[in-house]
Amino acid sequence: MLVSDMAHAFLDGSNTDMTATDTQKNTVYYIAKQCSKRCTPEEYAIALARHFVETYPKVSKAKVWVEQTPWTRCQVDGQPHNHGFAHTGGETRTAFVTSDDQGSTTVTTGLTGFKVLKTTQSGYEGYLHDKYTLLPETKDRIMATSITTNWTYSGPVSYDAAYAEVKEALQKAFWGPPMSGVYSPSVQYTLFEMGKLALARVPQVMSIYLNMPNLHFLPCNPVTSKFEDDVYIATSEPHGNIEATITRGDIEPHCKL
Amino acid sequence: MLVSDMAHAFLDGSNTDMTATDTQKNTVYYIAKQCSKRCTPEEYAIALARHFVETYPKVSKAKVWVEQTPWTRCQVDGQPHNHGFAHTGGETRTAFVTSDDQGSTTVTTGLTGFKVLKTTQSGYEGYLHDKYTLLPETKDRIMATSITTNWTYSGPVSYDAAYAEVKEALQKAFWGPPMSGVYSPSVQYTLFEMGKLALARVPQVMSIYLNMPNLHFLPCNPVTSKFEDDVYIATSEPHGNIEATITRGDIEPHCKL
Amino acid sequence: MLVSDMAHAFLDGSNTDMTATDTQKNTVYYIAKQCSKRCTPEEYAIALARHFVETYPKVSKAKVWVEQTPWTRCQVDGQPHNHGFAHTGGETRTAFVTSDDQGSTTVTTGLTGFKVLKTTQSGYEGYLHDKYTLLPETKDRIMATSITTNWTYSGPVSYDAAYAEVKEALQKAFWGPPMSGVYSPSVQYTLFEMGKLALARVPQVMSIYLNMPNLHFLPCNPVTSKFEDDVYIATSEPHGNIEATITRGDIEPHCKL
Amino acid sequence: MLVSDMAHAFLDGSNTDMTATDTQKNTVYYIAKQCSKRCTPEEYAIALARHFVETYPKVSKAKVWVEQTPWTRCQVDGQPHNHGFAHTGGETRTAFVTSDDQGSTTVTTGLTGFKVLKTTQSGYEGYLHDKYTLLPETKDRIMATSITTNWTYSGPVSYDAAYAEVKEALQKAFWGPPMSGVYSPSVQYTLFEMGKLALARVPQVMSIYLNMPNLHFLPCNPVTSKFEDDVYIATSEPHGNIEATITRGDIEPHCKL
Repeated sequence: MLVSDMAHAFLDGSNTDMTATDTQKNTVYYIAKQCSKRCTPEEYAIALARHFVETYPKVSKAKVWVEQTPWTRCQVDGQPHNHGFAHTGGETRTAFVTSDDQGSTTVTTGLTGFKVLKTTQSGYEGYLHDKYTLLPETKDRIMATSITTNWTYSGPVSYDAAYAEVKEALQKAFWGPPMSGVYSPSVQYTLFEMGKLALARVPQVMSIYLNMPNLHFLPCNPVTSKFEDDVYIATSEPHGNIEATITRGDIEPHCKL
Repeated sequence: MLVSDMAHAFLDGSNTDMTATDTQKNTVYYIAKQCSKRCTPEEYAIALARHFVETYPKVSKAKVWVEQTPWTRCQVDGQPHNHGFAHTGGETRTAFVTSDDQGSTTVTTGLTGFKVLKTTQSGYEGYLHDKYTLLPETKDRIMATSITTNWTYSGPVSYDAAYAEVKEALQKAFWGPPMSGVYSPSVQYTLFEMGKLALARVPQVMSIYLNMPNLHFLPCNPVTSKFEDDVYIATSEPHGNIEATITRGDIEPHCKL
Repeated sequence: MLVSDMAHAFLDGSNTDMTATDTQKNTVYYIAKQCSKRCTPEEYAIALARHFVETYPKVSKAKVWVEQTPWTRCQVDGQPHNHGFAHTGGETRTAFVTSDDQGSTTVTTGLTGFKVLKTTQSGYEGYLHDKYTLLPETKDRIMATSITTNWTYSGPVSYDAAYAEVKEALQKAFWGPPMSGVYSPSVQYTLFEMGKLALARVPQVMSIYLNMPNLHFLPCNPVTSKFEDDVYIATSEPHGNIEATITRGDIEPHCKL
Repeated sequence: MLVSDMAHAFLDGSNTDMTATDTQKNTVYYIAKQCSKRCTPEEYAIALARHFVETYPKVSKAKVWVEQTPWTRCQVDGQPHNHGFAHTGGETRTAFVTSDDQGSTTVTTGLTGFKVLKTTQSGYEGYLHDKYTLLPETKDRIMATSITTNWTYSGPVSYDAAYAEVKEALQKAFWGPPMSGVYSPSVQYTLFEMGKLALARVPQVMSIYLNMPNLHFLPCNPVTSKFEDDVYIATSEPHGNIEATITRGDIEPHCKL
């Protein structure tokens, strides 16, 4: 998306100097072609954003969003295939770059749709009880979420390595050690631990935003009240959505529940 | 979504004074029950947001989003039915309300997914041509879009009447008079005309945001190059997305192409 | 989809005499162009299916599915607009035609996604109770469904008129008279009444298939057990799906619950 | 879905002896609880289907569909985690079982949404050319598809082992050897090779159905006509869909293009 000095198009119906959206689309392919070596989503987004602000005098800012489709080289007979790929699912890696005609560029890396779950080591207790409260306190529940996150960098970084390191930090703080795990007293607390570990692991990360809806797996009450326990319903009924931005050097997070 | 003074939940794992998201969900139903008369989405959202900031001392701000599901009373034998409804499609009416513990409340009304089309009276010419430009200029094309819009009010208003008036203004500026229509030199120009007419028709509208992607219907070139014209392909290939916010008293819009 | 004598393509890798799917796609547009007058989805599907079996000796059968996108001429200032259309939602009209090289053609008309609801005049009682049964019997509930249906014709018919007549019959049997409605003891019973009325109204309808999932609107129990009644949750939890085919002259339906 | 002798529900509005869909839903959870050991989707579906036909005299047939959600045990620090799982994407494993009151049970295993691609070793030539044909012949193109398949067993089998073996056969026939690959003259030919290899590898597979739409990656013509080659557009425009059922002992497949 381009921010440009095109008020005359809105006011007078004149398209003079307008970079048509179709031209923008063609440029998306053209810049891809210029990337002669395999590059990260961030590097491609930077190249595209810089092209727009450097090529068109009326364009003061360019915003570029990229999603990486996970085509992964396949294995056949235990060897990587010369030209075969499978579409693995899981999370989608994202990049968002803004660049302006003053030479400033910001890079935001992220991921979306990363679903994680732990079958124990999660509870929720001690919250406010009033006449609208029906939720029973629990020391043990399934905890599951679909992580959406993005973070900004303070300076140069290897994008692939930083992505892998942040992702591993998020997982480590969510699941804990392989044998014992780590207790989660709330999504809020775990979310903050995840953000903190990402900041600790990658010094160039300035700030990280995390959004983690509660994907509930409810004990099958209607049946188990008459029968037995430990079958769970993967419900899609209304659920909580917790998010926060954890920023380096600011220990008072801005909280949204 | 509640903004509250709950840093201890993120930092220490203490849930003291937390309004659980399950309690929030229950409150959604409870406040609906309190609305003893049929009310607008905006009035319901205000009641819910006020409830949260007035009930919980730690909550400094509440944000409420409402979407109206279009169940419409049906006609049988030409008469409105006593208890029958059909789910009409078309656009979804939206409301977004924020309210804080200082007594301030803002109301944003909108709609999403309103698809409109005109088969003529649209062209696109005079734009910048460079080596990335392939789009041919045209004086006549199909123009189609899916409107997403929302607007804020400066003071008290009848929400239903204002919604109907804004929606009618948007349609009138898009299609023009029934017989002759109105020529559109670009989505940008038409979008601004639509916003202007909405501001002119409803004095309480302070500002209106409009997002209008280009839904292309392309002449069937591959076939028609060998055969004939006037069959169109409803393509989902990459397309332009035009948006702007039109604000009262500010004739220089902030443009994004 | 074409059924053709092309075993050599599967067995030997020879594409001789194959009508490429790209050619099929072009033909879809070409036949649309040949339909010089506005026609029904059924008439277009017949023209397309006949073209394939009459043009290609190897093709023994053609199957064509058509969905009608509901672009509806809009009203401006109370008058139909010369070239303006809005995308109304609601149900999608469907047509399915098969045609073979022996000259036989069958036409199936239908609709999908038609959501209807009644707020009373529905109950469910007297069913089998065993240790797996938890559902309470009720004389009054909300009844809602999303109708998918299709029907075949025994002979020539005006497709638009027949579609309108069948749709009206389905609605009439579902909702009943405008003031009093009609009591539904089960989705099964109402489904059969709907099919019967469609058969009665349109003599050319040979057989009609109806699929009607139960879209549950549940009394808000968790809250209302502590508070009050008559707020409903539009749940998407697992629900029943009832279907049957009602055939003229066969009063013993083939039942699937 | 149950097939049962319940004509009276449709005809008379009597629900006598009806197994309510809510009861069916409870049974889904109850039978899951009875499966005290980890079992395959097929074994669960058989247990559920047998339960219905053995428990309810009016039920003559039960049909059960199961989809396996791919929650996979995660690795932390290179070790499998005690209670942590991630939702890997990729294909969905499916099972479909029908069982009747005569003791007959059929098991169909399958997968859906398995997207595979090869960047070379695919062409399409020698097909019929007529006035509707625009597709150029090619000896080298990207080949990509989203595999949906299911197969039936003639006798007892280890469901997990058979699933893995069929999936590996499909991949091997699609991609060929790791270094050289295998040339595909058409989706039809490759599809048949895939089905044949599955039949050869797992003797208990009686018959296999394969559906493979052409997911086109088109050379970026509009730009490359003016610029250069080898950027591809992942188009969602209309495309071919090839399917066939390959049955043991029947070398003349029933072809549908």
